[in-house]
Amino acid sequence: MSDPKKTGGLAGIVAGETTIATVGKEGVGLTYRGYTIEDLAAQATFEEVAYMLIYGELPTQSQLDSYRHTLKCLRGLPAPLKTVLEQLPRDAHPMDVLRTGCSALGTLERETKSHDQLAIANRLLALFPGMLLYWYHFTHSGKRIETAIDAPSIAAHFLQMLHGKPAPELHVRAMDVSLILYAEHEFNASTFTCRTIASTMADFYSAVTGGIGALQGPLHGGANEAAMELIEQFQTPEEAEKALMQMLHEKKLVMGFGHRVYKKADPRSDVIKVWSKKLSEAASDKVIYPVSERLEAVMRREKGMFPNLDFYSASAYRFLGIPTPMFTPLFVIARITGWSAHIFEQRAHNRLIRPTADYVGHATRPFVPIGKR
Amino acid sequence: MSDPKKTGGLAGIVAGETTIATVGKEGVGLTYRGYTIEDLAAQATFEEVAYMLIYGELPTQSQLDSYRHTLKCLRGLPAPLKTVLEQLPRDAHPMDVLRTGCSALGTLERETKSHDQLAIANRLLALFPGMLLYWYHFTHSGKRIETAIDAPSIAAHFLQMLHGKPAPELHVRAMDVSLILYAEHEFNASTFTCRTIASTMADFYSAVTGGIGALQGPLHGGANEAAMELIEQFQTPEEAEKALMQMLHEKKLVMGFGHRVYKKADPRSDVIKVWSKKLSEAASDKVIYPVSERLEAVMRREKGMFPNLDFYSASAYRFLGIPTPMFTPLFVIARITGWSAHIFEQRAHNRLIRPTADYVGHATRPFVPIGKR
Repeated sequence: MSDPKKTGGLAGIVAGETTIATVGKEGVGLTYRGYTIEDLAAQATFEEVAYMLIYGELPTQSQLDSYRHTLKCLRGLPAPLKTVLEQLPRDAHPMDVLRTGCSALGTLERETKSHDQLAIANRLLALFPGMLLYWYHFTHSGKRIETAIDAPSIAAHFLQMLHGKPAPELHVRAMDVSLILYAEHEFNASTFTCRTIASTMADFYSAVTGGIGALQGPLHGGANEAAMELIEQFQTPEEAEKALMQMLHEKKLVMGFGHRVYKKADPRSDVIKVWSKKLSEAASDKVIYPVSERLEAVMRREKGMFPNLDFYSASAYRFLGIPTPMFTPLFVIARITGWSAHIFEQRAHNRLIRPTADYVGHATRPFVPIGKR
Repeated sequence: MSDPKKTGGLAGIVAGETTIATVGKEGVGLTYRGYTIEDLAAQATFEEVAYMLIYGELPTQSQLDSYRHTLKCLRGLPAPLKTVLEQLPRDAHPMDVLRTGCSALGTLERETKSHDQLAIANRLLALFPGMLLYWYHFTHSGKRIETAIDAPSIAAHFLQMLHGKPAPELHVRAMDVSLILYAEHEFNASTFTCRTIASTMADFYSAVTGGIGALQGPLHGGANEAAMELIEQFQTPEEAEKALMQMLHEKKLVMGFGHRVYKKADPRSDVIKVWSKKLSEAASDKVIYPVSERLEAVMRREKGMFPNLDFYSASAYRFLGIPTPMFTPLFVIARITGWSAHIFEQRAHNRLIRPTADYVGHATRPFVPIGKR
């Protein structure tokens, strides 16, 4: 274990205890607080899952009604935050916008005893969609949209602000399921970042801001955007197969396949694939879904690799009319629930996260004064 | 090693290789790229150390002259960043201001092939002092200061912007040494945060923004502020001793003492203590330094604990006329050099940092529909 080659990337190293999720546990796949992801995706709404992650147990009907109402009341953007968002250029990556907006909010609504971690978790959950879409519409069309509108759920709120009108029920439920699938995933790199930052006793916003930064990377949340960029290059499955074979021949990295923890399959992929297919049929799509299926088949045949959640999320989001650069921000909108639960857990049983390094640099050497260099 | 109690906080776990620093290596203390911290603090300037950390070797005189010139030219704040800073309230913590400013800059001057990691590292090194002090003066006195002024070093630039006039040579050199001492420290929590974020292939600003968030915590960079708050409660050494004995009796955490890695002494403490004493004498101080020395003596006598860098940095900064909430931001201004070197190193030998967790939560349980809860 002390061999740095073996511990590279801390793969397989236990960094702490958790009660929030299991990932890749034998025969189970993925559970949030003991509930399987399949049950949650089939039977729960995202707000129920968010409540369970944040408060620990599934809500009763009256708790859920009250929670939905609370979240609805938290959709308004503070004026100075609007001004901050208006300074961020049109060509900024939306992940950088959320990172900046979250950090700025932390100065406007500081964490205190009365505005505590629970309040902030709910505020961010309610506010991220508006933060993203206020900036998007302002920089793309000059419009200052109202974010405090009366949509019935986070999924509906997001789609309504994006498209300027209420979304079809099928679309809202597809988005809702996608948010459930993205809500939580144990000690992934962004969650581990949140926990490391929280372990210094930094404030809640610092931890989340760091998590957004980590999620942006193409080896993490950015993978769904990279998958879309791959898929939409092709007009037919045959063309896709040919190009993918060439990529594999050139040993190029194909995003959206395989996983650090799952070894045989990502249980979330089957769920989102069904939704991608439904949306494809509703949109009379003859290209994106068939191309996606072919890419999956080739990856299985050639590399024995399975699609992860990001792969079919990409096409599902495309059918919902979501611009590609918003794919990873949607991951933030979902994952703020899991991050929050992990920050609470880290704080409740805190120990500073501070590993050590294997030094392979210069031996101690005498200082050479500048005149003698 | 798989026992989470043993790996709590990843203490003693090797998370990767580094060539940048040794911390607490037998008989050596602290080295940056092989040079001892004592040699660097006595013989180098902060710009030389920054160059060495960022470029790998100490600069020649002409390289250093050119580097100083480059940094001077990078002191101007972009207009939209000024507007962002003006939105952050007067009572914001300056660390949250730097976190937000760094993140916002990442949207204005995005990382690209032409504006690469080296360029961004130098830009942040040159810009953090101005970012902090522009916000400070604007929110505290309504003044919009010019940050692109011709001070000869980063230390001089900071002090001149803070006080509105060039600082005495003794003060500039004390600040310069302090920046050297804070520049780098292996896999501490903020640097490890930078590396974890960088390991997802996120952009440079995301990594640094996360690092600032982690550094804010009182178990990490925030310790120097907490040390000052302790010290300045007392008017005499006797009063300090009495109060500290009471704190120890109540098992309260005393900030500024001990260290996760150093077991016998923090080699940086001896260096900054000498500077704190010099500054105390120059200021004819009869309270802060004697109180600090007494607190140190009591901690050694009662707990066998040694002061870490943060402890005498606090009094040194006080003698330089620096407001307490700027202590940790100064740590950022120094540590951006070490963070940058670590981000470069992580990227050059990247593997996603993704540990695992020990699950201690609910066994898998059936989903209960909302009507039956």
